Amino acid sequence: MLFAIIMAGGSGTRFWPKSRRNRPKQLLNLHGDATMLQQTVARIAPLVPAERIFVITGADQAEATREQLPDLPSANVVAEPCPRDTAPCVGLAAEIVAAQDPEGTMIVMPADHVIRPDEVFLRTVKAAVSVVEAAPESLVTFGVKPTRPETGYGYIERGELLETRDGVAVNRVVQFREKPDRDAAERFLASGSFAWNAGIFLWKARTILGEIRRHKPLLGAALARVGAAWGTAAGPDVLAAEFPEMERTPIDKAVMEKAADVKVLEVVYDWNDVGDWRALRSLLPADAAGNAVRGHVVALDTRDSIILSDDGGLIATIGLDDVVVVQSGGATLVARRDQLDKLKGLVEGLNDRGYGPYL
Amino acid sequence: MLFAIIMAGGSGTRFWPKSRRNRPKQLLNLHGDATMLQQTVARIAPLVPAERIFVITGADQAEATREQLPDLPSANVVAEPCPRDTAPCVGLAAEIVAAQDPEGTMIVMPADHVIRPDEVFLRTVKAAVSVVEAAPESLVTFGVKPTRPETGYGYIERGELLETRDGVAVNRVVQFREKPDRDAAERFLASGSFAWNAGIFLWKARTILGEIRRHKPLLGAALARVGAAWGTAAGPDVLAAEFPEMERTPIDKAVMEKAADVKVLEVVYDWNDVGDWRALRSLLPADAAGNAVRGHVVALDTRDSIILSDDGGLIATIGLDDVVVVQSGGATLVARRDQLDKLKGLVEGLNDRGYGPYL
Repeated sequence: MLFAIIMAGGSGTRFWPKSRRNRPKQLLNLHGDATMLQQTVARIAPLVPAERIFVITGADQAEATREQLPDLPSANVVAEPCPRDTAPCVGLAAEIVAAQDPEGTMIVMPADHVIRPDEVFLRTVKAAVSVVEAAPESLVTFGVKPTRPETGYGYIERGELLETRDGVAVNRVVQFREKPDRDAAERFLASGSFAWNAGIFLWKARTILGEIRRHKPLLGAALARVGAAWGTAAGPDVLAAEFPEMERTPIDKAVMEKAADVKVLEVVYDWNDVGDWRALRSLLPADAAGNAVRGHVVALDTRDSIILSDDGGLIATIGLDDVVVVQSGGATLVARRDQLDKLKGLVEGLNDRGYGPYL
Repeated sequence: MLFAIIMAGGSGTRFWPKSRRNRPKQLLNLHGDATMLQQTVARIAPLVPAERIFVITGADQAEATREQLPDLPSANVVAEPCPRDTAPCVGLAAEIVAAQDPEGTMIVMPADHVIRPDEVFLRTVKAAVSVVEAAPESLVTFGVKPTRPETGYGYIERGELLETRDGVAVNRVVQFREKPDRDAAERFLASGSFAWNAGIFLWKARTILGEIRRHKPLLGAALARVGAAWGTAAGPDVLAAEFPEMERTPIDKAVMEKAADVKVLEVVYDWNDVGDWRALRSLLPADAAGNAVRGHVVALDTRDSIILSDDGGLIATIGLDDVVVVQSGGATLVARRDQLDKLKGLVEGLNDRGYGPYL
């Protein structure tokens, strides 16, 4: 059986002031008619029934997450006691899946990426499932063809082409590379053999648990104790006791880089991780002057800007170019688009300035 | 006796969103510890007791004006039934003064200019009073030495130097010139013989009333009817009936340009009419990056900007230069400083866009 694990962590600084500590990006409706989390669940729903969809989130966000997903069993929204990066998170999910179906297959997906069209995504997922059915020990990743020398993503180097399933190329993975510097990113792009790591994985729960035990035996043992108690009255207490002690490490580094049978599927759908306001602009409908506008806005002689008024107030602009103006939750951001990299630092500094309530 | 007439009309578009229809510039605290109107009253108070200070304002603003001036007799705040430019306004004030003191002298001053230091201003006023005492038929104006070829002000051409009183030069006036075009403004500046018309006048009430009767007999007769009824039970009704019928004309054009004995006093104090947000910046204390900031503001890599948060919310800026960000009364303006000329048009268009409540 196929299970879906939606990773809904995220700190929520890059879409400040709309995103906040207890309302990170995936809980926001940034484009379209639903939040990114709701869109992610709806995207996989044709292949996975609600009772087999699990959302792993932070304790601060569990309540809001459940509210947004009323069709999911409440217990399927799992709150991590504390952030421990992706290896403990994926391992916990694998234990939950294995407890229900020892031969279960799971897809792991971020809650905050834009993917379209859904049909092409589902075709890629089906191809990945059939790869795992044919070779149950394989770990499958999804790789996006790079279009720019992006230094903010991890990369996957593709090796030998193994096969093409339903029009989707399946390659062996040579190596994973963390966020590269600019020179390396240029080389990766030019080589044609690197893909962006889209953060989507598909494998049998028992396979990933086996790999975790092999490469991170302490983590594997702790996960096994949580798994054994899962579904019993002791479950929450065991999770609360074990999880904070687990090693804080990403699944790519902990397991994927060392595992024997890792494959990468070519992503043929449109993918956008919507990293910040800049990236959002291309997803929103723009007026003739290139402005993406929401709420009560009067934009005079303003071009290529994002202007969002969430609080019901009026925003009037004159003579702006390439500026982001966002008003939400009593805070207003006015930033030049080419300087949005500084937003994270600004938000992280709010507490020291006495503006903690705006976090 | 000396009376002070403070002209407190003003439409309130240039400081939007802080200024509104019923809260124009003079009722705002834009700099310092009091509103511009309160500062204007306080400035003249050492020479004129409260019972001889009158404020002429619009019907929409009379209540707020009285609230701001609790020490003034309520009746001394006079509401014009409708806007009729400065000649009817000045004439009405002169009738009120003449009714109390047929030989009374009056200073007419705008409520929304920044003048400092007060001592130098008062010295200039005293010089003007002594000019009028020596020559009771003279009309005295105040002229500011121009520092740029400003096309937004009226100009006064100075003629013969008549005398110097208490260090203040008194010249005959050759002509008044309305707002000039750029070429004319350049010539005026280069000639050295033109001054900006600071909108301050000093004269005997009977003198200005005589000049109005001479050059605008219909207006003079209407004013006389209002003056005759002033202080009686019929006063308000007569004003309400006569005022709307009066000719809409500025006092400069109606009388000053034609009168025989017009003198201009040299303004030696600092003067700023604070025409818009741009002009305000030089009056506010600035931080090391040249930003004038009020309220909850975090300005990151931002220079030479005005950032005002009136509504209690947080404003965060990144990478701005020469930008005005003002949040007040549920509206937010974000404008490039060099394009503030467009603000008036923007505000005037709000109603058509369905944003009338923000006027």
